[in-house]
Amino acid sequence: MGVEERRQQLIGVALELFSRRSPDEVSIDEIASAAGISRPLVYHYFPGKLSLYEAALQRAADDLAGRFVEPHEGPLGARLLRVMRRFFDFVDEHGPGFSALMRGGPAVGSSTTNALIDAVRQAAYDQILAHLGVENPPARLELVVRSWISLAESTALIWLDGRRIPRAELEYQLVHDFAALAAVSAAHDEEMAMLMRQVLKDEPTDGPFSDLVGRLISLAS
Amino acid sequence: MGVEERRQQLIGVALELFSRRSPDEVSIDEIASAAGISRPLVYHYFPGKLSLYEAALQRAADDLAGRFVEPHEGPLGARLLRVMRRFFDFVDEHGPGFSALMRGGPAVGSSTTNALIDAVRQAAYDQILAHLGVENPPARLELVVRSWISLAESTALIWLDGRRIPRAELEYQLVHDFAALAAVSAAHDEEMAMLMRQVLKDEPTDGPFSDLVGRLISLAS
Repeated sequence: MGVEERRQQLIGVALELFSRRSPDEVSIDEIASAAGISRPLVYHYFPGKLSLYEAALQRAADDLAGRFVEPHEGPLGARLLRVMRRFFDFVDEHGPGFSALMRGGPAVGSSTTNALIDAVRQAAYDQILAHLGVENPPARLELVVRSWISLAESTALIWLDGRRIPRAELEYQLVHDFAALAAVSAAHDEEMAMLMRQVLKDEPTDGPFSDLVGRLISLAS
Repeated sequence: MGVEERRQQLIGVALELFSRRSPDEVSIDEIASAAGISRPLVYHYFPGKLSLYEAALQRAADDLAGRFVEPHEGPLGARLLRVMRRFFDFVDEHGPGFSALMRGGPAVGSSTTNALIDAVRQAAYDQILAHLGVENPPARLELVVRSWISLAESTALIWLDGRRIPRAELEYQLVHDFAALAAVSAAHDEEMAMLMRQVLKDEPTDGPFSDLVGRLISLAS
């Protein structure tokens, strides 16, 4: 194998191990053994476990950011639901590593890992604004989108802790949570109300957003 | 001063400095100077900056958890709004330190600090369940409460980043966000719907929850 090819293979092996267990439980020996090479050879490519962890995390971050990309076609609610499914696929695949990373701590809370997490959050934020067709968001829209992204993270973390609620329900509920938080903001601010009316005017009556309104009306009656 | 008195004074001085700037920008020299004692004397009471930081954080965590305590009297929406005001008072008083802590990173992300943050989250969770009068919460209620707590944290962090939205609006909106997330969950699950009906049956028509329904109805029409 060439140098770059070997590096990429090691990153893949490491990512799989770091995903399945908390990173501080994974040793270089284990990575070497899983990759079928010697421990000194691992150090030939990566100076230490932290640099291998950061490279694996970079690959996972790129993967996750890629899952946010969705064609600008069809109803917004359905687009968001497809992205939520891919987000939970990712969370499912990387469960223990995702939990350890997002819960922080000395093993995983370096400034590099924090910057990678922030970059993924920013990618999610940029995608949502692009789908909403808003270039210069008012502060209240930025708040709704960014705080909903954190809600999606915490929902995924709580789901991983025991998986007591079917993930399909949470994926759908997060789409409804987005609509609910946007509605609360619109109920407090006229600019947000106008923006949301504009954004939602083409949503179909059988889409997720209309479904939420129907559910709430039947709940209230 | 006695030993314990001196320790408490140092913790107070340190908390004030750690609150106003990122902890990694605060030196032991500065703390010693603000306390009017010599640098070696600081080390007599605390082995290093981290232990002083953790002691200051413990005091801040106790303070914050204390602000969650609210008499079990009157409408729930009004209780939650009072707690949100005290939460934003705290965030306002400790802004830069709160941001640095919650954004993590090597300077502040030790396992001790993470345990302190989790304890405050747990205190908030326990208080909310006690006010709702629920002893054994179903998984969906736990999700609503815990994910709303994380929403309150992220809303406060976004507010601190520029303070572009009046905090009184955010305090009130977070009460509405709680109702909105609970409503979404109730719209998906019959047990949650029954629980929410039970919890909200005594809310007055001029309280925050009725106000939200009124706002949403006028928004929809």
